[in-house]
Amino acid sequence: MKGYFVSFEGPDGAGKSTVLKEVLAEIGPELRPQYLVTREPGGSKIAEKIRDIILDPANDEMNAKTEALLYAASRSQHVEEIIRPALKTGKLVFSDRFVDSSLAYQGEGRDLGIAEVKQINDFATGKLDPDLTFFLDVAPEVGLSRIKKLRPDQEDRLEQENLAFHKKVYAGFQKIKQMYPERFVTIDATQPIEQVVKQVIITLKQRMPEIF
Amino acid sequence: MKGYFVSFEGPDGAGKSTVLKEVLAEIGPELRPQYLVTREPGGSKIAEKIRDIILDPANDEMNAKTEALLYAASRSQHVEEIIRPALKTGKLVFSDRFVDSSLAYQGEGRDLGIAEVKQINDFATGKLDPDLTFFLDVAPEVGLSRIKKLRPDQEDRLEQENLAFHKKVYAGFQKIKQMYPERFVTIDATQPIEQVVKQVIITLKQRMPEIF
Repeated sequence: MKGYFVSFEGPDGAGKSTVLKEVLAEIGPELRPQYLVTREPGGSKIAEKIRDIILDPANDEMNAKTEALLYAASRSQHVEEIIRPALKTGKLVFSDRFVDSSLAYQGEGRDLGIAEVKQINDFATGKLDPDLTFFLDVAPEVGLSRIKKLRPDQEDRLEQENLAFHKKVYAGFQKIKQMYPERFVTIDATQPIEQVVKQVIITLKQRMPEIF
Repeated sequence: MKGYFVSFEGPDGAGKSTVLKEVLAEIGPELRPQYLVTREPGGSKIAEKIRDIILDPANDEMNAKTEALLYAASRSQHVEEIIRPALKTGKLVFSDRFVDSSLAYQGEGRDLGIAEVKQINDFATGKLDPDLTFFLDVAPEVGLSRIKKLRPDQEDRLEQENLAFHKKVYAGFQKIKQMYPERFVTIDATQPIEQVVKQVIITLKQRMPEIF
């Protein structure tokens, strides 16, 4: 039994959570026991506690390396407790964000270096890579304005960063896509949601004809 | 201005905190503004929040890599917020534990590998090493029995580990001492406390005649 690991990446406000929810609604209920949906940072009890420290806007004196290490710590617990066991039993795992987010946000956005952050995460995950990654593509300006509209005054510590930061993160994602051209599938996330969901489903069917 | 960084290491129950307190009492009050005392894990607001997650006995499903990454995250914040600024203004910094504890506890005790844990910590600290490290030497059996006597039912998650774990940690410390023979000064911590304190002071005076 070998599972299949799918991650959803993109700038804040790309609509990852919504798209993921809609995609799952398209999958027949008879297939539900075969898949697992999770999110980062978080996804397990300890990982959620770490998530609270990372995202709390009160922790504004947190330095970039601490932030990167906390994401890696949360991810390590998430992988060992949730993702690996599910993959081992042959499940299809969908994760809202994974290592690529750390490479883009901390490696490029915080200037820690993509290679350096990758090394920390290789330690954290035992070099687990997704089989397939959807990049929901939306310009950082558009993503940020969506978030401000959707939940004003409820932005987390990362979302509160300025546009210059989010532009760097976006540039980071472009670099990472070039590093893993076979794994990444880019979808224009400015399209109507039904269209985005449809393209995700088509790709999943191509990659996993035995499941879909 | 260049400060001086002293760490205290040893098995649980070696008496690090007590010895450190007594050493400081021996230093004249006129010198107090010149030194800073801190501890790991913790030492700053964010680092203390991370400490709570690490040491909480309720978090018994925490995996070894998560533990190592949380220590590194806490340390990164501690170094950048507390230790480096103090050293920059020429202070003498005393820390109750530092990177060597992670190498011994997670690298050797948890079988993650001393080199692997060192790499994570080099990232976390920007390769900051103490100038001097006191190893308070006590057999793990003795250290553990001291802790059980001193504060029964109040052991943290690491102290609760069994003797086999603490023996591995002790063996780890021996390896690390061999890696850094010039930095480490070993003191027999089964001696009466006054004797231990006296030897620490003598060493400090030798190393820093201008301060003591």
